[in-house]
Amino acid sequence: MAQNRKILYLPPAGLSENILSPQAVAILESLGTVFWNETGRNYTCDELLEMLPGAAAVITSWGSPQITEEHVAAADELQIVGHAAGSVKTRLAPAGHERGIVLLSAADVIAESVAEYTLWAMLSGQRNLLRYERVMKQERGWKSADEHFGHSLYAKKIGIVSASMVGRRVIGLLKPFGCDVMVYDPYLSDEDARLLDVRPVTLEELFAAADIISVHAPITPETRRMITRAHFESIRDGALFVHTARTWVLDQDALTAELQKNRFNAFIDVFEPEPLPADHRLRDLDNVFLSPHVSGHTSESRLRLVEEIARDIQRFFNDQPLRLAVPYEKLSIMA
Amino acid sequence: MAQNRKILYLPPAGLSENILSPQAVAILESLGTVFWNETGRNYTCDELLEMLPGAAAVITSWGSPQITEEHVAAADELQIVGHAAGSVKTRLAPAGHERGIVLLSAADVIAESVAEYTLWAMLSGQRNLLRYERVMKQERGWKSADEHFGHSLYAKKIGIVSASMVGRRVIGLLKPFGCDVMVYDPYLSDEDARLLDVRPVTLEELFAAADIISVHAPITPETRRMITRAHFESIRDGALFVHTARTWVLDQDALTAELQKNRFNAFIDVFEPEPLPADHRLRDLDNVFLSPHVSGHTSESRLRLVEEIARDIQRFFNDQPLRLAVPYEKLSIMA
Repeated sequence: MAQNRKILYLPPAGLSENILSPQAVAILESLGTVFWNETGRNYTCDELLEMLPGAAAVITSWGSPQITEEHVAAADELQIVGHAAGSVKTRLAPAGHERGIVLLSAADVIAESVAEYTLWAMLSGQRNLLRYERVMKQERGWKSADEHFGHSLYAKKIGIVSASMVGRRVIGLLKPFGCDVMVYDPYLSDEDARLLDVRPVTLEELFAAADIISVHAPITPETRRMITRAHFESIRDGALFVHTARTWVLDQDALTAELQKNRFNAFIDVFEPEPLPADHRLRDLDNVFLSPHVSGHTSESRLRLVEEIARDIQRFFNDQPLRLAVPYEKLSIMA
Repeated sequence: MAQNRKILYLPPAGLSENILSPQAVAILESLGTVFWNETGRNYTCDELLEMLPGAAAVITSWGSPQITEEHVAAADELQIVGHAAGSVKTRLAPAGHERGIVLLSAADVIAESVAEYTLWAMLSGQRNLLRYERVMKQERGWKSADEHFGHSLYAKKIGIVSASMVGRRVIGLLKPFGCDVMVYDPYLSDEDARLLDVRPVTLEELFAAADIISVHAPITPETRRMITRAHFESIRDGALFVHTARTWVLDQDALTAELQKNRFNAFIDVFEPEPLPADHRLRDLDNVFLSPHVSGHTSESRLRLVEEIARDIQRFFNDQPLRLAVPYEKLSIMA
């Protein structure tokens, strides 16, 4: 029975090296006959179309072709699509959702890493410890007599923009620090706010009051440029701004302009465009730490991407509750 | 009554700027007549000797004279000594303890900051994010096609050397990361290990098995150079070693020699001697992050040092339970 099940695995070998663990291979092969991608590149839309008939499950990742209405029509046996990467908004055509094809997302694995980066950025920004790399190595110095020791994270006012998957994980990592956590999220219920032990606030209150602001809002029509010049101008002197979401949600030029005033510090992992141009003004600012869109990745989290998807596909075929299924009705407010 | 109480405050103005908050001043002045140090420097032993008669409380900090047997004899009314700094081992002569003079230590305030630094060091070392300061600013680059994304902290094997005040706080900050925490501490009871949810191990097991090792052992006769060359040689390739305690507990030359093999990474905040000589070999190693003995300090934690001591002196005079009292019988195994 299992051996008759056709499973399509779309990521090419180069990517699989980092995201496909031996455990994932074993799970997938226990579920049916896996058609691995041996081409060394991503399949074209046409190639996928030819392979879909008879397939019960498809595993996709970054660069895999989207599953369009035409693909859905060809996929006569398809029951489940597992996306071993982040954003699933356009992964499966509405026709697929309507036919009841289950869609899985590994975004929660990535969220874990983004949350970890965010806590690191908060600690780094507060304590200002990165400077010692220069002081102790290049300058071969020591602390100065009037050393400014930087700030603690304990008990700070934190503003989390969106109680998304990442936002909630950040709130969890902050628990031992006894912070006063404010959240802006129009979809957060009072009950959820109580459970998370956070204060719901407006976006304006959040920007004006927080010692540390961290953005975790998804890409939706409502979030387009929702963080404006006025929000950045209202940030407190000496505050810290952390951005690991998407530039979609803010005005990057306004942020850059405000950062050039050197009133507050920022850790920024996402840009428009990417890669960030070599001569971009952000690269010249001492009050800004930049990283090249890596917050969602560690070796371990990448290597778990297919595995977590494979485990959920296994649960699906065993009629067990799923952990990574994306509810169709929530797709519009998700990343 | 309160106004008749003589309170000696020993830290000079320069230090007080960072450790004495307005709240602390208000609390102390509510408790009696405070004799502030107006000399601009630390008192000499003789000056302290002259001031002690009639004093009910003394507040000390870094650089204050020790309270010797001679001082104790002169301190006819002394009931409590509050040390607004870390180590209290030699702060008060045994004669003072024997007469029942209460000794307070603000070490727990410092422990909070050391624990925060330690978590930051663990995240920094695992994720290797500091390198992007160079990549994004000096090199004006982006991630490479075969980027190594660094490691996660989640679920790692952590070895904590000593369940000291700092060690316990580090264990607390690690809670959300679901790590497997091993502890070497001959004074840790099975019951305490259960409550902390850690595995007691030998020092040898700890060094050989941990992904991340963090040292928090106090200065005692037994801890002198207890971490040896053999321990460092047993550290796993690719592991992370964090040191924020005192060089007393380890062989710094052996650590340096092992780090020169570039097998594992380290974050080191404490050295012998301090300041670390400008030409010390540690300053040349790319696999080592150095900071100039700052892990115990943030602006906020320094500003709380006298305040927390003042609150406990207030509790003492109000016959309330104390939070910072140092039990004499534990002094020998404390930092």
